[in-house]
Amino acid sequence: MPKIVQFYEFGEADVLKLEDHPLAEPGEGEVRLKVEAIGLNRAEVGFRAGRYLELPKTFPSTLGYEASGVIDAIGSGVTGLQIGDRVSTIPAFSMLNYGTYGESAIVPATAVAHYPETLSPTEGTAIWMAYIMAYGPLVEYGQVKADDFVLITAASSSVGYSAIQIAKTAGAVAIVTTRSNAKKQMLLDKGVDHVIVTNDEDLVDCVMKITNGHGADLIFDAVAGSLLETLAAAAAPGATIFMYGALDDTAATPFPLFAALQKGLKVQGYTLFEITTNPLKLEHAKQYIYEGLETRKLVPILDRTFTLDQIVEAHRYMESNQQNGKITITVS
Amino acid sequence: MPKIVQFYEFGEADVLKLEDHPLAEPGEGEVRLKVEAIGLNRAEVGFRAGRYLELPKTFPSTLGYEASGVIDAIGSGVTGLQIGDRVSTIPAFSMLNYGTYGESAIVPATAVAHYPETLSPTEGTAIWMAYIMAYGPLVEYGQVKADDFVLITAASSSVGYSAIQIAKTAGAVAIVTTRSNAKKQMLLDKGVDHVIVTNDEDLVDCVMKITNGHGADLIFDAVAGSLLETLAAAAAPGATIFMYGALDDTAATPFPLFAALQKGLKVQGYTLFEITTNPLKLEHAKQYIYEGLETRKLVPILDRTFTLDQIVEAHRYMESNQQNGKITITVS
Repeated sequence: MPKIVQFYEFGEADVLKLEDHPLAEPGEGEVRLKVEAIGLNRAEVGFRAGRYLELPKTFPSTLGYEASGVIDAIGSGVTGLQIGDRVSTIPAFSMLNYGTYGESAIVPATAVAHYPETLSPTEGTAIWMAYIMAYGPLVEYGQVKADDFVLITAASSSVGYSAIQIAKTAGAVAIVTTRSNAKKQMLLDKGVDHVIVTNDEDLVDCVMKITNGHGADLIFDAVAGSLLETLAAAAAPGATIFMYGALDDTAATPFPLFAALQKGLKVQGYTLFEITTNPLKLEHAKQYIYEGLETRKLVPILDRTFTLDQIVEAHRYMESNQQNGKITITVS
Repeated sequence: MPKIVQFYEFGEADVLKLEDHPLAEPGEGEVRLKVEAIGLNRAEVGFRAGRYLELPKTFPSTLGYEASGVIDAIGSGVTGLQIGDRVSTIPAFSMLNYGTYGESAIVPATAVAHYPETLSPTEGTAIWMAYIMAYGPLVEYGQVKADDFVLITAASSSVGYSAIQIAKTAGAVAIVTTRSNAKKQMLLDKGVDHVIVTNDEDLVDCVMKITNGHGADLIFDAVAGSLLETLAAAAAPGATIFMYGALDDTAATPFPLFAALQKGLKVQGYTLFEITTNPLKLEHAKQYIYEGLETRKLVPILDRTFTLDQIVEAHRYMESNQQNGKITITVS
């Protein structure tokens, strides 16, 4: 029997339990993966802790948006996929219905895609969430272009690195924030143009200096809270601030009304489901990502990998904010 | 000597003083109007009271964005305008530099436009601010189209009526809010599809009922404050909430982060200067407005008119929130 991760209550990382589970069969429109690697996301930490956009209605609940593996069973009505195919999952489903944390996972056939043969399973599971998260705001909506100033917070996450690479692919200037000096050099090593250390430097002053008083054209933020007002102050006229997370979940997020009026700012909420549940937009995103991987403009940045029986430790590591890229689980 | 309105300190309406002033000569790129009518705006109330996007740096200060009149002097370098031309002002300048409250006003030549001969001077001064305010969000940015659900707050202002007419011109469904029953019938009489009386009815429930659970596609709000969270709850997935004012200036404006993420909402600050200071966008706006006035899809809604020596009373009336359309001053 495959082992899968479930939880019976909301709480700290140790609510996650690795348990034997009867091998399930895929239903109509579904496929089953023999999982090789799993990608970890903040979304699952929130889902487990009881603070996410949607929450399980019954327990135990599975969890997880990302896995790579080999298809070992196919439900009815599925076309274009075969047993033995090497695929990874695209977050195009609700965790209320599906979860990827386990040795075996059933997911909708529309939520898997082949990944380049040059990538390992851990790299394969690290691409869709991270790149689509940044692709939507920066490419689909923001239409980032050469010489734009792109300001990225929480830059050392897998999504942060994706945003940096997408900005650089377009020829834009990537400006990132980090709290302490600890991550500054590694961000510069990854091709960032400017790193602002927010414990030591004034974010708005730095952005205005870097941009010659223009401000940031596109802002990609996972933090929210009181930072939004600072980001609005650092924004160029007509800029868009994309909000895709709420890392600062201790605080309310005041809307920067005065700056928004004066500069005609847009503040736009975003989840990648806007792309992944829209077949046409998803197809464009996939082509963009395949091309970027092919030309090596997009290179998944991997952090530590854990084994499945270390899932509690892996979640704790994610919550410790030490990561530098994608945290993965190697299953087999 | 012409009389002009000035104020020597921030305060209530009675800080406005009507005083004789030597006739000034227009400088380079400026024209002088013999004023026939003046349009009143919330912006001037805020400017006078010391709470607006920009404030006078020295006193006394003039004020006013809108006037209609006849050109009686032309500065150097002005083309396309002649003495005797019947024009009205477009708010394309800062009140730090120019003011229209008076029997004579000097304004930039780029900030005047001819208005249709069929309109009276009070109508002529009521068109640019009101229609461009609503045109930017609904047409230039929001691209309102047939069957969109457009939700409009503060609907009985001149800008509110403009938004209603622009929505109806596009074939959209105009849903407006009003606090009490007092203005309900007059809003229906002006072609509004649905009026929600917020003292008696739940805004979100009503919008969801009217839209069959879809929500509002475009929201045009002058209020801000805690209402923003309610508007986000009433918004359709992918909707844009345009904020163009801060009538609820007593309260902070919390950003509706959760709804914004879940529904991919945009909250966009807007002032009409985005249009009026961009020659191409302004030209498009003017053509739209001329055509709408010509076809009578756009019909300025006039409220009370006062004389210039009643300017204090006129400001008090605006602040009493009784108005139904544009408040004007008839000068001669």
